Amino acid sequence: MSSPLSNRQVRLAKRPEGAATRDNWQFTTEPVAEPAEGGVLVKTLSLSLDPAMRGWMNEGKSYIAPVEIGAVMRAGGVGRVAASRNPAFAVGDTVYGTLGVQEYALVPQEEIKRNGLAKIDLRAGTIGQWLNVLGMPGMTGYFGLMDVGQPKPGETVVVSGAAGAVGQTVGQLAKIKGCRVVGIAGGAAKCDWVVKELGFDACIDYKAGPSAVREGLKAHCPKGVDIYFDNVGGDILDTVLAKLARGARIIICGAISQYNNTTPVQGPKNYLSLLVNRARMQGIVVFDYADRYGEAVAELSGYLKDGRMKSREDVVEGIDTFPEALTRLFTGENFGKLVLKVSD
Amino acid sequence: MSSPLSNRQVRLAKRPEGAATRDNWQFTTEPVAEPAEGGVLVKTLSLSLDPAMRGWMNEGKSYIAPVEIGAVMRAGGVGRVAASRNPAFAVGDTVYGTLGVQEYALVPQEEIKRNGLAKIDLRAGTIGQWLNVLGMPGMTGYFGLMDVGQPKPGETVVVSGAAGAVGQTVGQLAKIKGCRVVGIAGGAAKCDWVVKELGFDACIDYKAGPSAVREGLKAHCPKGVDIYFDNVGGDILDTVLAKLARGARIIICGAISQYNNTTPVQGPKNYLSLLVNRARMQGIVVFDYADRYGEAVAELSGYLKDGRMKSREDVVEGIDTFPEALTRLFTGENFGKLVLKVSD
Repeated sequence: MSSPLSNRQVRLAKRPEGAATRDNWQFTTEPVAEPAEGGVLVKTLSLSLDPAMRGWMNEGKSYIAPVEIGAVMRAGGVGRVAASRNPAFAVGDTVYGTLGVQEYALVPQEEIKRNGLAKIDLRAGTIGQWLNVLGMPGMTGYFGLMDVGQPKPGETVVVSGAAGAVGQTVGQLAKIKGCRVVGIAGGAAKCDWVVKELGFDACIDYKAGPSAVREGLKAHCPKGVDIYFDNVGGDILDTVLAKLARGARIIICGAISQYNNTTPVQGPKNYLSLLVNRARMQGIVVFDYADRYGEAVAELSGYLKDGRMKSREDVVEGIDTFPEALTRLFTGENFGKLVLKVSD
Repeated sequence: MSSPLSNRQVRLAKRPEGAATRDNWQFTTEPVAEPAEGGVLVKTLSLSLDPAMRGWMNEGKSYIAPVEIGAVMRAGGVGRVAASRNPAFAVGDTVYGTLGVQEYALVPQEEIKRNGLAKIDLRAGTIGQWLNVLGMPGMTGYFGLMDVGQPKPGETVVVSGAAGAVGQTVGQLAKIKGCRVVGIAGGAAKCDWVVKELGFDACIDYKAGPSAVREGLKAHCPKGVDIYFDNVGGDILDTVLAKLARGARIIICGAISQYNNTTPVQGPKNYLSLLVNRARMQGIVVFDYADRYGEAVAELSGYLKDGRMKSREDVVEGIDTFPEALTRLFTGENFGKLVLKVSD
């Protein structure tokens, strides 16, 4: 590096109760340090904004440690190597890793050894696609659908958050695998896009009225639901439970309707449908499949290239907009995978 | 048959709201008819009283059709062939089938063809055992634990309703398979019996206080719960969900705490523990395993004979006591498999 660079950062100032606001964040600017032996300095290009981030802001054990108060907010993203003291990375390499919400990330050797930084090939997909279908959302959708859901041709697959990052991958992949696919999304524009652009068989607008999901499932899933990929929880999960087919599989990927709750999570009161229908409900955490990302990326990038799969990103620019950008996920304002562009 | 016999019957008079009472039943006495060609007349010896009966009294689709108003209440039981026009059955044979709550059951040929009547061998077990470990509860426990739970030696298995019919089979079988087994039951007497007689590693008395289950799981499941066999639902299910080990399996067999509800079923608000722990929750209906009952009976009767497994029945006598006998299941008064003895 030729001159000292400044690093704008977003840190967790206090844990939210309910929805996160700008008050939960603190902005800092620090000089960029040199990487230590074996480490790499990465310039952040684009960050992935995900519903799971809300969970990381809470205290208490989950599948991953919470972000500490005062720490830079955790975020996965794509960056460019700006300085390297690690022979596996050269200046200019494009990489994916847990960069954090900051302009520059120092990735130490230990983190690189834990597979915390990976070179990515922009010939396989754009930066946006690497944060979407080829990134964590895509991996989540791929392994959740294929490993947990085990779709068979002709089965009916329902996916909530259908226009979101995970939902687009799940629905398009299920179509490629020969399933009937019904999405659930908020608003006519998203539903139109899911059907017309992504090729889902139908999409239910859950905002269309209190019985929209129930009536939509009745209309579009005449043989019941074989696989439900759940990103939202709450009432929608309960409504789908009431429509399960014999031997159904429910993939629990998230519950975005519940993450800002200040009251206990809403339990699925129709869970005994699992008994009546000999069905199962199973959770997935994408990190468990890290050693198989390569096979999924190869398959999905093939679909992107031959046009059988599309990918849509909703790009917000500027690190200072992070607090409001994150909020868009929970109000459903984002349309497609939400990406925070930090730098070119 | 030499002379006309009278048949005392218990019929469903009206569907219950909440707990069933004597008002829900109607007693009738009819002359016994001769079996038609291909049919069999069975004299009821003992009937199985099961939590699932409460569900059969409700209107609406479940895994089995509801009992119609005015119909003889459905019940499985052991009887003796009193008259036969079917070459597969001789007078005096001991049989298991859906006899109903009545002194005599006419089983038509169609029902026999659907495997609705099976000869049983009293050398493999007593009548009580054929309604318990070798009967539907035992089959439910066997296939639920082995097929859905897939226990591995050293794993921790928790079973609710531990002193009940399904629970005794599950816990003892899990011990035989090399697991650590923790029961949950109501009252010190049942817990003592489960540990001292059945050999469970521990048993938690859920009636001992509001935090008894939570504290008991903490004390007895230091590595978390690998398999939870759930017969009760409600708060206990939620408390176990909070203690799951990575990769846990929950077998949903029933939810006796919820069957008398006049409000919606209590959904498990801790279900996102399935996500955090990559765990699954799956329902089981025993009838799906009908073609494999033989293998389970052979294995379990071996354990009964060599003393590795015990079986306890709580026998109530007289068909007229049926309404109150059934109620004992829901108050937890029964101690062991509840059997209604109708005749010698």
